[in-house]
Amino acid sequence: MSNNNKYSTLFEPVKIGPVTAPNRFYQVPHCCGMGHVRPQAHAAMRAMKAEGGWGVVSTEETEIHPSSDLSPYVEQRLWDERDIPALRLMTEAVHAKGSLAAVELVHNGNHAANMLTRAPVLAPSDMSIDFACPKQARAMDKSDIREFRNWHRNAARRAKQAGFDVIYVYAGHHMSLPHHFLLPQFNDRTDEYGGSLENRARLIRELLEETHDEVGDTCAVAFRFAVDEMQGIDGMQAHEEGRAVVEMLAELPDLWDVNVSDWSNDSATTRYQPNDGYQTPYIEFVKQVTTKPVVAVGRLTSPDMMLSMVKRGVVDFIGAARPSIADPFLPQKIKDGRIDEIRECIGCNICVSSDNLGITIRCTQNPTMGEEWRRDWHPENIAPKGAEDHALVVGAGPAGLECTMQLAKRGYQVTLAEAGKELGGRVATESRLHGLGAWKRVADHRIYDLQQRANVQIFMESNLTAKDVIELGIPNVIIATGSSWRRDGIGRSSRRPLKIASTMSILTPDDIMAGRMPKNGPIVIYDDDQIYIGGVLAEHLATAGHKVIFATPASMVSPWTELTLEQKRIQKSLIELGVTIHTGQELAAISAMGCVLACTYSGQSQEITCGAVLLITERARHSNLYDTLKTSDTKFQTLELIGDAAAPGLIADAVYAGHMAARNFEEDPDKVAEQLFRREIVSLQ
Amino acid sequence: MSNNNKYSTLFEPVKIGPVTAPNRFYQVPHCCGMGHVRPQAHAAMRAMKAEGGWGVVSTEETEIHPSSDLSPYVEQRLWDERDIPALRLMTEAVHAKGSLAAVELVHNGNHAANMLTRAPVLAPSDMSIDFACPKQARAMDKSDIREFRNWHRNAARRAKQAGFDVIYVYAGHHMSLPHHFLLPQFNDRTDEYGGSLENRARLIRELLEETHDEVGDTCAVAFRFAVDEMQGIDGMQAHEEGRAVVEMLAELPDLWDVNVSDWSNDSATTRYQPNDGYQTPYIEFVKQVTTKPVVAVGRLTSPDMMLSMVKRGVVDFIGAARPSIADPFLPQKIKDGRIDEIRECIGCNICVSSDNLGITIRCTQNPTMGEEWRRDWHPENIAPKGAEDHALVVGAGPAGLECTMQLAKRGYQVTLAEAGKELGGRVATESRLHGLGAWKRVADHRIYDLQQRANVQIFMESNLTAKDVIELGIPNVIIATGSSWRRDGIGRSSRRPLKIASTMSILTPDDIMAGRMPKNGPIVIYDDDQIYIGGVLAEHLATAGHKVIFATPASMVSPWTELTLEQKRIQKSLIELGVTIHTGQELAAISAMGCVLACTYSGQSQEITCGAVLLITERARHSNLYDTLKTSDTKFQTLELIGDAAAPGLIADAVYAGHMAARNFEEDPDKVAEQLFRREIVSLQ
Repeated sequence: MSNNNKYSTLFEPVKIGPVTAPNRFYQVPHCCGMGHVRPQAHAAMRAMKAEGGWGVVSTEETEIHPSSDLSPYVEQRLWDERDIPALRLMTEAVHAKGSLAAVELVHNGNHAANMLTRAPVLAPSDMSIDFACPKQARAMDKSDIREFRNWHRNAARRAKQAGFDVIYVYAGHHMSLPHHFLLPQFNDRTDEYGGSLENRARLIRELLEETHDEVGDTCAVAFRFAVDEMQGIDGMQAHEEGRAVVEMLAELPDLWDVNVSDWSNDSATTRYQPNDGYQTPYIEFVKQVTTKPVVAVGRLTSPDMMLSMVKRGVVDFIGAARPSIADPFLPQKIKDGRIDEIRECIGCNICVSSDNLGITIRCTQNPTMGEEWRRDWHPENIAPKGAEDHALVVGAGPAGLECTMQLAKRGYQVTLAEAGKELGGRVATESRLHGLGAWKRVADHRIYDLQQRANVQIFMESNLTAKDVIELGIPNVIIATGSSWRRDGIGRSSRRPLKIASTMSILTPDDIMAGRMPKNGPIVIYDDDQIYIGGVLAEHLATAGHKVIFATPASMVSPWTELTLEQKRIQKSLIELGVTIHTGQELAAISAMGCVLACTYSGQSQEITCGAVLLITERARHSNLYDTLKTSDTKFQTLELIGDAAAPGLIADAVYAGHMAARNFEEDPDKVAEQLFRREIVSLQ
Repeated sequence: MSNNNKYSTLFEPVKIGPVTAPNRFYQVPHCCGMGHVRPQAHAAMRAMKAEGGWGVVSTEETEIHPSSDLSPYVEQRLWDERDIPALRLMTEAVHAKGSLAAVELVHNGNHAANMLTRAPVLAPSDMSIDFACPKQARAMDKSDIREFRNWHRNAARRAKQAGFDVIYVYAGHHMSLPHHFLLPQFNDRTDEYGGSLENRARLIRELLEETHDEVGDTCAVAFRFAVDEMQGIDGMQAHEEGRAVVEMLAELPDLWDVNVSDWSNDSATTRYQPNDGYQTPYIEFVKQVTTKPVVAVGRLTSPDMMLSMVKRGVVDFIGAARPSIADPFLPQKIKDGRIDEIRECIGCNICVSSDNLGITIRCTQNPTMGEEWRRDWHPENIAPKGAEDHALVVGAGPAGLECTMQLAKRGYQVTLAEAGKELGGRVATESRLHGLGAWKRVADHRIYDLQQRANVQIFMESNLTAKDVIELGIPNVIIATGSSWRRDGIGRSSRRPLKIASTMSILTPDDIMAGRMPKNGPIVIYDDDQIYIGGVLAEHLATAGHKVIFATPASMVSPWTELTLEQKRIQKSLIELGVTIHTGQELAAISAMGCVLACTYSGQSQEITCGAVLLITERARHSNLYDTLKTSDTKFQTLELIGDAAAPGLIADAVYAGHMAARNFEEDPDKVAEQLFRREIVSLQ
């Protein structure tokens, strides 16, 4: 780092109890769908964060006992000695890059259903499990509490043996027993663990003291605490009991890791929380109460904001989960003064959706996330070019842009042809919709990169025919021509074209994104896609003043967005915008007057009068150019179809496809095949 | 077997191509949530079926390639050589018991989202994935089809290497590519793989021929085929194209394994399909068309029906999934003439729910299912008694009955005290509700067993106080006093008691099950439980003529029953019974006139007038007796609280708790603890 780097403060070492972090960049615990099921992939991913400059790198939730069995969700596990080797993979890899490794010990109480172990579910008081599961938790008696404290103490010892430097006590996200004990709605005990705040915090105090006692000689004890439930007076508030907790325990932990709960508030998407640093108002009091270092989050990607937060005394560490996923090398880029190269988190929560599915983490911005071990991908490094010199990429959507950028990085001469007037494809169009503005960063990052490169030629409004492509004479052609939404009603619920009256105005998402708005109201949005775009378009049109009727075969608006923690916000927003919602309805036909809906359960039909219908069903691939070239007499060295044109999916899928095409170009096919098959396998010992 | 066993026909060996099954009992492929994630548990479970007399024992779906990646669902895997050892564990264990091992090779097409491998999703034609997943499948071109056939051939070879005797081609449940090619709604191809039935069946023919060619010298080739989609003229029908397929391919496979699709039809619950043998009308034509042996299913548990089906020429093999789960020793019991000892499947689909959760299989009737490896439990054998002689079990619900039965089997003198007038507890009361009649088998099986035993004393209408228990002087006391539904509104959605007008008639499920019906209509059912009982009670009351209004915070009726494949049937039934349904509604208060409901999204409230409210929220444990005894001066050798009294759950959980208490009684505590921690761990190699 040059001495006059304006961000040098961010690179000061900071002491945390008996250990010292090399800088102020702190990857707080975040789930990743790898955990104990994919330990090698996990170690490689965490190590990449360390390599990129994160001074502290944490695990996800780490179960301490079979009575905190989160199966089928995939988190870490430290039930007994057998789990140590898998976690040691991570600590050794993180240490090798000079960073500290932290572990978030967790007992999930009634957040864990113990489906695999069938152990009793524990809670401060008798209560249901926190999702629709046919079991109830039982109130812990005194001996249960003693046992739990022992489990925590023993897990701390195992964590130390596994090589961790920082060991957490966790009271956040409504996901852990210590948090449950703290919150009155979970705790109606009448003994010394219930009632007053002091009593409700007793368990936390004991855990902090006992963890310190067990491992505090060489390990720091961190306390992760949600200072505010964001439920107003119905929950804990930062400036009421939240502050009182920090005052009460101020000097007990070696580090305060503070945030807000629940998870949907902590990991708010840009769609509903566009402001980076949004947690600062809740947590900024903490440093005034404790002398211990403080780490906090809030989708922090701006180095200036980071610097300001440290200089103003809001935090000692810049905490990050999502920004460290989008760019593991964010610290290094700040250190190098390469601010413009930071791949900023777009706040889409694709990462969160992976964990909710129990699947290896994915990221829209960073296609290498989760592929560090399986495909041996590095977010910043890519192999130099081979024997070929020149490639043509057709289509500048997310797949085409990523592919072009990576091919250019490899040193190829790349020609990028875009049929439209702007770069970005669906990223450009979707990011103009209500709430999705931050998604534009996917295109911006890549466009900026391409602008720095001399070996890329971009042709706009260049709608290439097969003849054009052949005449260009470039031997390697990658086609990323995207897809468009079908207009015939074929989709998830119906494989047959819909009966549509010719006089009804039929729109697709592409029409709306191209600015073609319904002329006559009201408009029925029929969402058979059930992912996110239906809810976005309903918000978009309702916000623009249209009368919107939303119909879907699903039981809720945009059910897939439960995975991104947005579903409740979306449906609330539509209701508040006056959108009429019909769930459990299939579109049976479109008449001249409106839509005939049929109940997905009973088949009972109803007719909804409207002036226009927006069909959101399925996408049709734009593969004509590829198909024509494939059957032409011209033989290309490479001819590949990628992105939505090959298989419509998320923007994350398109970026990934573009990245993979660039990686695999001139790669050994056996190596590529081997990567497809690489997975972690259960031991038969 | 005695020579005059009337069922001796069922024990004849049957040739299947080059192999011979030792008898006619055939465990068809069924999922179990173990698969490649829990290979040792899987092998032990399948081996138990073989030990119990199933002549053929099959795997679950077995993925043949990374482009059929069912993650996060847990099935088998045979992608490459690395997967062979795990499956060999099963074949060796099954062979050791003298049975044949079968493997269901599967490529799931658009039923697999390839979430882990990120491989392209394949289908006969472009289409969505078959659940709300943001990806689409792409139509396979000719080279894709060639590759797929190679994958299948290579997987067959690996299956043979793993030791399988029967190798499947699978076209069922709408879950596999061969099935998708066959069905017009999945296949609009215009080449030789689309159009005519012959074209649509071409891929199946090729797979059968190629599998035969690859492994047919030593392995039988089975074809699992859904003859009817149960959609009337909108789908394949047994007596139309279903029959035509069998005629076309009659002699090609070595075995026909026939059923109906989709899964919810094949695995219909007794709630909506009370008749055993319900698939016979669909499949009985098959044997008239082919000379090859035929296996079929239909929740077959009656030996007389089995015998009749074989003698009438309906099938050669008695197929079973669920009946073999409820009683792995069903064949052995028939062989031994112990018909009354068969633990009949109740058709509740708890087994199916486990798989849908990606969790080790569970069974209501058979608490050892899924615990063969982890806890070393055997469904028929249990350790003889230790030093103690006498135990008291309080409460004859599912936990108490199972515990008593197993303790008695172990040789203890057992005193069972039941406060009520009948045995069975919640099993007795719930099975009187609409549709749940077959659940009574849980009690019947155990009551029959107890009646055979001299070492069990049962006291009815014996509502023991702590004083009574102490006076009895039995040193080992197991308390299974159950739970009752709360009347105060506390539950999943609200931890605070509800405001309830004193003049409103408030009922709980216990009231209805005790025969207390609402006097004034209409009745609002508020289902905050969201598991199954709410929908059952709505059906029960509506069928009895009551005007029912159903309100729930969930987005559908009984959302948990999606896991048992019943949800759509339940909501359809309620709609057809005229039940008014309000989803996404929390109960805010109960006035003298009705219910105040608040939208779970917006908080908007509405008032529903009614004459009674049935609150289904959460259960309160009956732990008074236990709590009093625990704090009494009398010291018991054993004092244990089990079942719903310890933690309200499913009937399956209560049976399991009763079983575990009996197993662990006088067991080495270290062994019990070790079992709790036993799990399969990922290799770090």
